[in-house]
Amino acid sequence: MTFTPQNPNFVARALRIFHDAPFIRHLGVEVLRCELGLVETRLLLREELLQQDGLAHAGVIATLADHTAGGAAGTLIKEEEIVLTAEFKINLLRPAKGMQLRCLSQVLKAGKTLTVVESEVFSSDAKQEILVAKATVTLVSTEMKP
Amino acid sequence: MTFTPQNPNFVARALRIFHDAPFIRHLGVEVLRCELGLVETRLLLREELLQQDGLAHAGVIATLADHTAGGAAGTLIKEEEIVLTAEFKINLLRPAKGMQLRCLSQVLKAGKTLTVVESEVFSSDAKQEILVAKATVTLVSTEMKP
Amino acid sequence: MTFTPQNPNFVARALRIFHDAPFIRHLGVEVLRCELGLVETRLLLREELLQQDGLAHAGVIATLADHTAGGAAGTLIKEEEIVLTAEFKINLLRPAKGMQLRCLSQVLKAGKTLTVVESEVFSSDAKQEILVAKATVTLVSTEMKP
Amino acid sequence: MTFTPQNPNFVARALRIFHDAPFIRHLGVEVLRCELGLVETRLLLREELLQQDGLAHAGVIATLADHTAGGAAGTLIKEEEIVLTAEFKINLLRPAKGMQLRCLSQVLKAGKTLTVVESEVFSSDAKQEILVAKATVTLVSTEMKP
Repeated sequence: MTFTPQNPNFVARALRIFHDAPFIRHLGVEVLRCELGLVETRLLLREELLQQDGLAHAGVIATLADHTAGGAAGTLIKEEEIVLTAEFKINLLRPAKGMQLRCLSQVLKAGKTLTVVESEVFSSDAKQEILVAKATVTLVSTEMKP
Repeated sequence: MTFTPQNPNFVARALRIFHDAPFIRHLGVEVLRCELGLVETRLLLREELLQQDGLAHAGVIATLADHTAGGAAGTLIKEEEIVLTAEFKINLLRPAKGMQLRCLSQVLKAGKTLTVVESEVFSSDAKQEILVAKATVTLVSTEMKP
Repeated sequence: MTFTPQNPNFVARALRIFHDAPFIRHLGVEVLRCELGLVETRLLLREELLQQDGLAHAGVIATLADHTAGGAAGTLIKEEEIVLTAEFKINLLRPAKGMQLRCLSQVLKAGKTLTVVESEVFSSDAKQEILVAKATVTLVSTEMKP
Repeated sequence: MTFTPQNPNFVARALRIFHDAPFIRHLGVEVLRCELGLVETRLLLREELLQQDGLAHAGVIATLADHTAGGAAGTLIKEEEIVLTAEFKINLLRPAKGMQLRCLSQVLKAGKTLTVVESEVFSSDAKQEILVAKATVTLVSTEMKP
């Protein structure tokens, strides 16, 4: 799919969605790649991000899938617009046991109001990387309120 | 709906799902109520749980909805079983601007393998409480691996 | 939740969504109740609506859940608007073995653009009625194009 | 992803899921391709499959996405097992105006109990084919009850 940028500074606009989000900075999400309609991120796992069985918490995985999707949608908005998640659905496919998570989010459909993004989350250790979750995220683009 | 407990200590079993989860302790989730098929939780919002527009992050809301659902499902498992989220879907209905989130999770269907739970998340400030999100969570009950 | 009608003839507007839909007439969906933000429907099951194990097909249940949700959203639109499903998620909770399906759809949130509706589908035989599915449907209200 | 067949006659087993389903025969769904973990289908649109604005009904699209996913999961079960949809989520991305629908379903994760399948539905007319919907389907494999 090819996209038409609404903003010449779309990379900077999308990156601001990460820099300006306290929860994302707090978790330690890093942006690896930012292109028109696509963002890739990484999150190093540490004790405080785990659930009761020693796996990455589904909420951490969901946060990464949602926010990276927001970044991908953010590459396609106008400078004065913001993106908000309307809904998402995530399947936790395999236990996320690794040392880090990687998320790849790609826009499936960019509309005037609604943008649909797919996020794949991978978990990796020293030996291999596996797909641990897949999410579909619907976002609304709207004018920022002053 | 009425449920049959699989475990006389179902409250203690479900509470362990909260106590043993580092991410949930880290966020500061408190359990307000724990009954057969129902758990209610609360989370005080602070700067580091917000997104870029000053609202509670969708990932925080999703974490609360998912984990409280896990607690509700946890009231219905055997002592030696664990619950894992297979998938969930969440609709972010209104901006979560308040000072705290409250989540009410109730089991919709308890099966041998799959349990379906609904979570409602409310945001409140000094004046009012509003429904900000609704989630449907599918969980798998499985034997703990030694 | 209370709703403000956008159209004095909201019942007629919503009913048209059923009358004008060939697939819905073809299946034989009947409207039992139509109020502001709420629609209830019924569908008698017959051989051709079943799947390979003799149950109501998930697609039939989903169609009923989706279209009845569209009707509920349709009670809240302006005369010249239409509603389109943006996405839905449905959990098939129990096998639908009965002779008829009943669906109750209620608006959870009515927004300027997006309306979120919950649908519950029940299956009944001579003795009892059980909840067989629950869906959450997101609909877009938009101006009809000439 | 590579899959291990549980059944030497997996193609025949999966095709039976189509042949034995009255609703699918009634709609006129044809199987174009059936491989391990993958099924492709087609449905010619006719008046009675449309909604009120002349588009393919979301319920028809959902039925195709769900049942084709069931076929893909059906290539991976044992002879004596059946597959049942536990839940699915579908995004209707663009209006389905064409003369036929095509659905491609591919298994994302095959587990002992749960199989997750993605379905893409395309609509085509004389000139072009477009992606009109994407679904994620969770299915349960279970022993057939006598």
